[in-house]
Amino acid sequence: MDLRQLGEFGLIDRIQKRSPPPAGPVPLGIGDDAAAILPPRKQYLLLTTDSLIEGTHFDPAFSTFQEVGYKSVMVNVSDIAAMGGVPRYILISLGLTERQTIEEVDRLYKGIESASRKTGLDLVGGNIAFSTGPFFISPTVVGEVPKKEMLTRAGAREGDILYVTGTLGDAAAGLALLKKGVETKPFARLVRRYRAPQVRWREGRLLAKARIPSAMIDLSDGLSSDLGHLMERSGLGAEIEADRLPLSPPLRRAALQMGADPIEYALNGGEDYELLFSVPRTKIKQLEKLIEEGSIAAHRIGRMAPSRTGLRLIDSSGQSRTIAPGGWDHLRKGRKK
Amino acid sequence: MDLRQLGEFGLIDRIQKRSPPPAGPVPLGIGDDAAAILPPRKQYLLLTTDSLIEGTHFDPAFSTFQEVGYKSVMVNVSDIAAMGGVPRYILISLGLTERQTIEEVDRLYKGIESASRKTGLDLVGGNIAFSTGPFFISPTVVGEVPKKEMLTRAGAREGDILYVTGTLGDAAAGLALLKKGVETKPFARLVRRYRAPQVRWREGRLLAKARIPSAMIDLSDGLSSDLGHLMERSGLGAEIEADRLPLSPPLRRAALQMGADPIEYALNGGEDYELLFSVPRTKIKQLEKLIEEGSIAAHRIGRMAPSRTGLRLIDSSGQSRTIAPGGWDHLRKGRKK
Repeated sequence: MDLRQLGEFGLIDRIQKRSPPPAGPVPLGIGDDAAAILPPRKQYLLLTTDSLIEGTHFDPAFSTFQEVGYKSVMVNVSDIAAMGGVPRYILISLGLTERQTIEEVDRLYKGIESASRKTGLDLVGGNIAFSTGPFFISPTVVGEVPKKEMLTRAGAREGDILYVTGTLGDAAAGLALLKKGVETKPFARLVRRYRAPQVRWREGRLLAKARIPSAMIDLSDGLSSDLGHLMERSGLGAEIEADRLPLSPPLRRAALQMGADPIEYALNGGEDYELLFSVPRTKIKQLEKLIEEGSIAAHRIGRMAPSRTGLRLIDSSGQSRTIAPGGWDHLRKGRKK
Repeated sequence: MDLRQLGEFGLIDRIQKRSPPPAGPVPLGIGDDAAAILPPRKQYLLLTTDSLIEGTHFDPAFSTFQEVGYKSVMVNVSDIAAMGGVPRYILISLGLTERQTIEEVDRLYKGIESASRKTGLDLVGGNIAFSTGPFFISPTVVGEVPKKEMLTRAGAREGDILYVTGTLGDAAAGLALLKKGVETKPFARLVRRYRAPQVRWREGRLLAKARIPSAMIDLSDGLSSDLGHLMERSGLGAEIEADRLPLSPPLRRAALQMGADPIEYALNGGEDYELLFSVPRTKIKQLEKLIEEGSIAAHRIGRMAPSRTGLRLIDSSGQSRTIAPGGWDHLRKGRKK
């Protein structure tokens, strides 16, 4: 049986039947005109949507449908994480093409379910349509955050210290390796980070609950670009110390092999899905304690500066230069510079 | 300046600047990682998403970008209406192609804003991505409904009377006229209903508040298909009286001109965006009073029957025949029969 024989309603039935029971109370899930959820008390509801389009955001040669499903959920969870929120519900809007098979759609949902289970999301609805063009998946994720704990891109103050979770540039280097067609086995970590990002929703929640950051953003377009958003919203500049950028050993090796500068991947490579946050000096001790006891993996990379500073990179010799946001712009379909 | 020069972030700025101030309190709107809204008390939150894809759901030769923007909002509002809810917030996920100009995107948002203003929606976020394929727009609408007033597709009882708002088949006939390339001026109403559907959110809310329907659904795929969903969810069959189907005079004239049966459009034509609802006999008087005083335009078209009846159409001579759901299936890209 192919997708056409199964039809839209057959497919919706199939998805509904394979969906695990919701983790929380859901008054009305898949299968009616809309889903109904119970709103939280004393919390904000967070809403975000981010799509993956074949040919723009992924290449079927580099990612399986299961990975695409998984990643499409995670990139949205990352936005909830950046607000300090808890991911709760997800809707999936699909654009399927003639080429898709039922097996591929099953694998897609396997990835969606795996990411949802991991992050505590209940799949409550969506839409399935036919597209003549590239396949696309556009999830919407609903999260919750206690009102006093919500973090935004605004709120950083001059002198606040900049931290970033995990390591930077891995996913971009993983994609570069795939595109060059080199043997990726020695760089499995990088490729995995591109295909199935480690999203920091636990860390985001922990930081928000502890009221440590003054501002936070997730790194989807690249450090220079996303830090630019945080600077703009906070009305500030920033200084980054090149030596402090957390680079994984496989990234260093991959950059060497490709004759590239690993700092470039860390600054301008997209899809890190790490959290970048500014911390007031009064909260540094509290954060460093969390880092020491292993509750969160984060590195200090610089500090917020006056607006006139712009974005400056300080190298190991103490020299500093202005850098332009160089991350991904979805309409420019590439690097900004 | 073209879209590429403006870039994703320039476009988001432009959209944010042109957006009217929110109608309700919105703690955080466009421009951060996620939007934050205040959840209602004692109400369910309703979530729905429905996309329009170029070449599948609309043809740029038949609809302007403004109409596509308007309609993309309205088809989602219709789902909230079918639950008896109030539309509150909207997110827009866009897939733009290389062909789009800034002016087209401006017109698209003009339509989005017009529909949003009309229905009380606040645009709080979204996503803009580049697509190699057809243009798509995938809104997510969030609504609210008092817990005790929510209406679903389930809940109809045997003997309940079926009503439908407005008239049926107009939009499908309007599209058929456009496709045939005939002069549409005498049929402006039909074409308008295809391009800019009259969505029944006020009627849906009124019915829900008065606790009149036992079940409700919006007609997007066609009466036979959508009634099929209501039957299935309620575990019942239904009988429709052909003579009672509300057909507009221009639909009758258009069908005559095209040599088609107007009943076919009413039964199987999609995109009516009217509400179909079942009413217990004890509530009929109350509903008929609302109809008489002009609070709602609705017509009685049949009744809910035992499951074994299936879906039957009774003609003027009293003869009845079983009909199969013949509405739109998005994966089959056409009629089901």
